[in-house]
Amino acid sequence: MQKDYKPMWSDLEMNLDAHDGLLGVLTEAYTNIYLSQKNRPDGMKYFDFVISEVHGLRIEEIVEAKKQGRKVIGTFCVYVPEELILAVDGVCIGLCAGADVGTDEAEKYMPKNTCALIKAFMGFKLAGLCPYVQTADLIVGETTCDGKKKAYELFDEMTNGKVYVMEIPNKKNKDGKILWRNEVKRFAAKLEDISGKKITLEKLKEASKLVNNKRKALQRLASLRSADPSPISGLDALLINQVAFYDDPVRFTVKVNELCDELTERVKSGKGVSLAGSPRILISGSPMAIPNWKIHAIVEGGGATIVGEESCVGERNFASLLDDNFTSLDDGMQKIAERYLTINCACFTPNDERLTDIQNIAKRVKADGLLHYAIQFCTPYMMEATKVKKVADKIKLPFLRIETDYSMEDMGQLKTRIEAFLEMIGKGVKA
Amino acid sequence: MQKDYKPMWSDLEMNLDAHDGLLGVLTEAYTNIYLSQKNRPDGMKYFDFVISEVHGLRIEEIVEAKKQGRKVIGTFCVYVPEELILAVDGVCIGLCAGADVGTDEAEKYMPKNTCALIKAFMGFKLAGLCPYVQTADLIVGETTCDGKKKAYELFDEMTNGKVYVMEIPNKKNKDGKILWRNEVKRFAAKLEDISGKKITLEKLKEASKLVNNKRKALQRLASLRSADPSPISGLDALLINQVAFYDDPVRFTVKVNELCDELTERVKSGKGVSLAGSPRILISGSPMAIPNWKIHAIVEGGGATIVGEESCVGERNFASLLDDNFTSLDDGMQKIAERYLTINCACFTPNDERLTDIQNIAKRVKADGLLHYAIQFCTPYMMEATKVKKVADKIKLPFLRIETDYSMEDMGQLKTRIEAFLEMIGKGVKA
Repeated sequence: MQKDYKPMWSDLEMNLDAHDGLLGVLTEAYTNIYLSQKNRPDGMKYFDFVISEVHGLRIEEIVEAKKQGRKVIGTFCVYVPEELILAVDGVCIGLCAGADVGTDEAEKYMPKNTCALIKAFMGFKLAGLCPYVQTADLIVGETTCDGKKKAYELFDEMTNGKVYVMEIPNKKNKDGKILWRNEVKRFAAKLEDISGKKITLEKLKEASKLVNNKRKALQRLASLRSADPSPISGLDALLINQVAFYDDPVRFTVKVNELCDELTERVKSGKGVSLAGSPRILISGSPMAIPNWKIHAIVEGGGATIVGEESCVGERNFASLLDDNFTSLDDGMQKIAERYLTINCACFTPNDERLTDIQNIAKRVKADGLLHYAIQFCTPYMMEATKVKKVADKIKLPFLRIETDYSMEDMGQLKTRIEAFLEMIGKGVKA
Repeated sequence: MQKDYKPMWSDLEMNLDAHDGLLGVLTEAYTNIYLSQKNRPDGMKYFDFVISEVHGLRIEEIVEAKKQGRKVIGTFCVYVPEELILAVDGVCIGLCAGADVGTDEAEKYMPKNTCALIKAFMGFKLAGLCPYVQTADLIVGETTCDGKKKAYELFDEMTNGKVYVMEIPNKKNKDGKILWRNEVKRFAAKLEDISGKKITLEKLKEASKLVNNKRKALQRLASLRSADPSPISGLDALLINQVAFYDDPVRFTVKVNELCDELTERVKSGKGVSLAGSPRILISGSPMAIPNWKIHAIVEGGGATIVGEESCVGERNFASLLDDNFTSLDDGMQKIAERYLTINCACFTPNDERLTDIQNIAKRVKADGLLHYAIQFCTPYMMEATKVKKVADKIKLPFLRIETDYSMEDMGQLKTRIEAFLEMIGKGVKA
């Protein structure tokens, strides 16, 4: 950290002592997992800096933005249209949900067998440890799973009515599309209401280009990982996909593109983070919020490289662009609604498009194995794993199914299973 | 059983040996739990008979109906409009989902931490032990929870494409209502398609009256349980609510009304199944499918009486009548859609109407305590329990939260907790 942020955290009514402890743990984990990596691109220095200031400088920027009258919109899902938030000059941020924090407190409100991500967002709030949620003027939930859908009702009480829930339909048929388009419009109206600003065609087009540019930069990064050897570790790429939810989008886009320039040079010269021919793993499943680096750390610690994430923190966030050639606000809303419905979340039934996505990504990144990751009790992804396995079997892609939470208790067991999987892939584990 | 049904079960491709075993276990459980009860109404003899023939005579009737060209529609949810099924002369039946059957097989397709009801319907099919699913021409699923929503995708493959899923919206707002009304119409069209019969206004009105009559009979039964002492045990009332999903609806209605005549006499003479003043318990939460009698058996074994079920197998199934004064098919569809949306399932967000229902029912049945029952991993009801507890605290109604599955492993622990609860209610446990 560059300076003493305690007065700011205190203003945000955070629990200062516990927060010190959390930052200590995070710094140690980051040092061990990230900074110990060899052969990292120079461009990662920016993201190292962002992480070191993730509760500091970035929060200061957000507090400053609030002083200038901008509204802060907290989200938990890639279905929340960022374009609309930017079109009212809002700040769009992901909320803390990636660590075992405040679990005991959260379990007073919800069953123990709730997924770790949900317990975490509740726990971070109850423990006073997430500066993002403390700055939020509006917290946008969605109906993507039973756990979140019902937890938002309780979260609303904890945040003095700041929660606004967008309904995601269960099916992508005609009625579902109409319902979702109306939800998008209703959300736009809500944003106008709380910001006191009108969404104009010009503003929406500008915001749309900005978010598309961010997506294009992330697509470029994803594409560069297709090289063998990959020019960047899965851990670093995951980090960038995580930071995408927190950083200023314009600056973030510039920095990702700068990194991609460097990676392009690496690919040209055949330079990579691992030996060519080491196992290339595609991850698919539940999202991994900061600082959930568990699976990547084990896989890459085992000598393999993760070359893609078919995940909300990954491909599902950036794979499709918005058609920003709209000519009216109504047309814009319609195109936004359509763009978001291309995200193949397991909340839909059926969701066979996801199976196609996985096959396409696996081919593009030249995956040697598919690791299906589900947060324990994440029913939609756990259930879909059965169909994903069937597809993997069909295309003869070695498949491993992992269910875990945020604790470190199963690290030994996971390590054994994952290393056996990497050996099975037949290229051997490179220690 | 009246006769040898093995040839029929064999025609239905059931697993005869395992089925014999299942029937043996069921008969024993029924004898121990039901037939051992004292002071039962004579009218329960019919329901004892129904249970003794639940895989026999009733299946024979259904097979006969199929021979006459009637279609058999299997369901798992009170959101599936029975009126429409009857309007095409269909047979509407609940499918087996109440016992630990085929669990090992089911867990090959879905995670262990899936709710027992879902594992059971999958398990019954995989083990070849549910004659109802074997006769079904169409299996109607719905999007009421993540587990069912995703399990139906797998179930569809296991039943050669017999699954049809109705979308229940997440919110009861204007768009949700439109979506649901269109789902009702689509379901009607599907039924016409598979049955080859047209739904006419006359047919729909007739079916609507029939289903309303069934609901009225169940309402009458529910109302009679308000007497102190209750003229019928919670176990027997639960059984009737379970049989409601399997029996011929006209005959069932007659038999429930006959029983209610008897219960009316009992109430007049102050005759009941327990001592007046013994603890009166309202159950609220997840549905209890046949033969899930676990909680009722423990509570009533502890000397208390269960006087109501705020459950899909209970109040949510019959509490509201359909306005059958419609004058066109379109009006009928609209009224059906409206009637079903009065069911306050935990799949909705928010679902505060359920909290009102619980308070009203508790008052009506003069409950001394509220037992919130959730099947383990039933996220919607487990999550809502937090709000239900808050309401119970507000109205000073003693509250106990139970989460369990279909196994008998936790019987001792549950017995201890429930008996402590009954003692706490302050009227003492009457052994």
